[in-house]
Amino acid sequence: MDIPLNHPRHRSLMERHRLIDGLRQGYVAEAGLIAHGRGEAFDYLLGERTIDEARNAEKVAVAMLLLSENPVISVNGNTAALVPKEIVDLSEAVGAKVEVNLFYRTPLREEIIGKILRDNGAEVVYGIEEGTCRRMTHLDSERGRVDCRGIWVADTVLVPLEDGDRAEALVGMGKKVIAVDLNPLSRTSQKATLSIVDNVSRAVPNMIAFAEKLRGCSQKELRDIINTFDNKGNLDAVVERIRRGL
Amino acid sequence: MDIPLNHPRHRSLMERHRLIDGLRQGYVAEAGLIAHGRGEAFDYLLGERTIDEARNAEKVAVAMLLLSENPVISVNGNTAALVPKEIVDLSEAVGAKVEVNLFYRTPLREEIIGKILRDNGAEVVYGIEEGTCRRMTHLDSERGRVDCRGIWVADTVLVPLEDGDRAEALVGMGKKVIAVDLNPLSRTSQKATLSIVDNVSRAVPNMIAFAEKLRGCSQKELRDIINTFDNKGNLDAVVERIRRGL
Repeated sequence: MDIPLNHPRHRSLMERHRLIDGLRQGYVAEAGLIAHGRGEAFDYLLGERTIDEARNAEKVAVAMLLLSENPVISVNGNTAALVPKEIVDLSEAVGAKVEVNLFYRTPLREEIIGKILRDNGAEVVYGIEEGTCRRMTHLDSERGRVDCRGIWVADTVLVPLEDGDRAEALVGMGKKVIAVDLNPLSRTSQKATLSIVDNVSRAVPNMIAFAEKLRGCSQKELRDIINTFDNKGNLDAVVERIRRGL
Repeated sequence: MDIPLNHPRHRSLMERHRLIDGLRQGYVAEAGLIAHGRGEAFDYLLGERTIDEARNAEKVAVAMLLLSENPVISVNGNTAALVPKEIVDLSEAVGAKVEVNLFYRTPLREEIIGKILRDNGAEVVYGIEEGTCRRMTHLDSERGRVDCRGIWVADTVLVPLEDGDRAEALVGMGKKVIAVDLNPLSRTSQKATLSIVDNVSRAVPNMIAFAEKLRGCSQKELRDIINTFDNKGNLDAVVERIRRGL
């Protein structure tokens, strides 16, 4: 697909193209295309830009990841289609593992996504090998499984584009959950420990940049960034911004 | 897919299932799934119900269709997946032709959709046979083609789930355009002669019911229904309702 770089909707059209391509390759789920459309609608209402509330949340997210003992980035088909290289770069910048964790799990989809992440520089990808030790969360057997070396033992999990049930289950397991979701009213956004209301294709690069900036901070400085942030208030401000924009 | 009838999201999940099934059958476009997701987001903001403004617009739409000399209902993949029987019933109730008109046009997709409409009772389906006389609208060659026995000579065109460029082109051709679109701010909604902001799976059944009710009205009574309606004011009221609901 040939989209001129100066096309006003270049980024949005490229994202659609990447997802459709991922569907044809067999690792993006059909329901992932519908979910992307829902995101597009909210992105449109946000002005298709990173709003201040999102930028603040992205900075706090990086502080949380840098302070964590065992941070994990959960990767699904849409995330692999939209920001494969960026996810690997972020995982290196904050010292997080990457784990493939799918709502519509098939060994083929897991394998392709694992290969995409390795092709983009990931040395170890959790959640994909047959025989991997998996443990159950509160959810049903397939959707609840996580890698016992990855999300199972994580203290903080970054879940871009996650389903509400699963985000809630992770919170129920005592994890700190960082969500990236364009709908500020979604159960994922409402239940997460930290809610980034931004397009994942802007959020992850922004977080890489924050990781560079915060690398030299002391643990106390990082904790101060986190402790002065009010997630509920920030989410309410996002909704208010959408309301004013309408 | 087995979804309990009393599931709170039964309608929404069934719609997703129908679209995914249509994609697998080859007549729903991948981009149609993304477009459906955008609609879902706005439907969520409307409370997933027919709001008063939509019901009013649906009544006016039926009055317009009943008064028209040559009304045509334009059918794309998503519409065929979601309301195939209802589209045929509406076309009979208001005396409108049905025409297959696709943004991503292929002979195979046209044929399958034609067959779906015929299987649901349509006697004649325009826009599908090879060799059909097609005329160009203002748009580029593929996306602009319409059947010269159908949309080309129509005075009123009902376009559920239409792209903004194409809705605008139809208005530019002097047609009265009735749009069904869940985004009140979309170019389709903003450019249409009459804008129904409702889920097509609710809008079309509602319109069939209005067709029963208005069947006995005089031309003057139908014109009065149309003339007392302010489309711009109605659309503004929809946006205000979304704003209040946030």
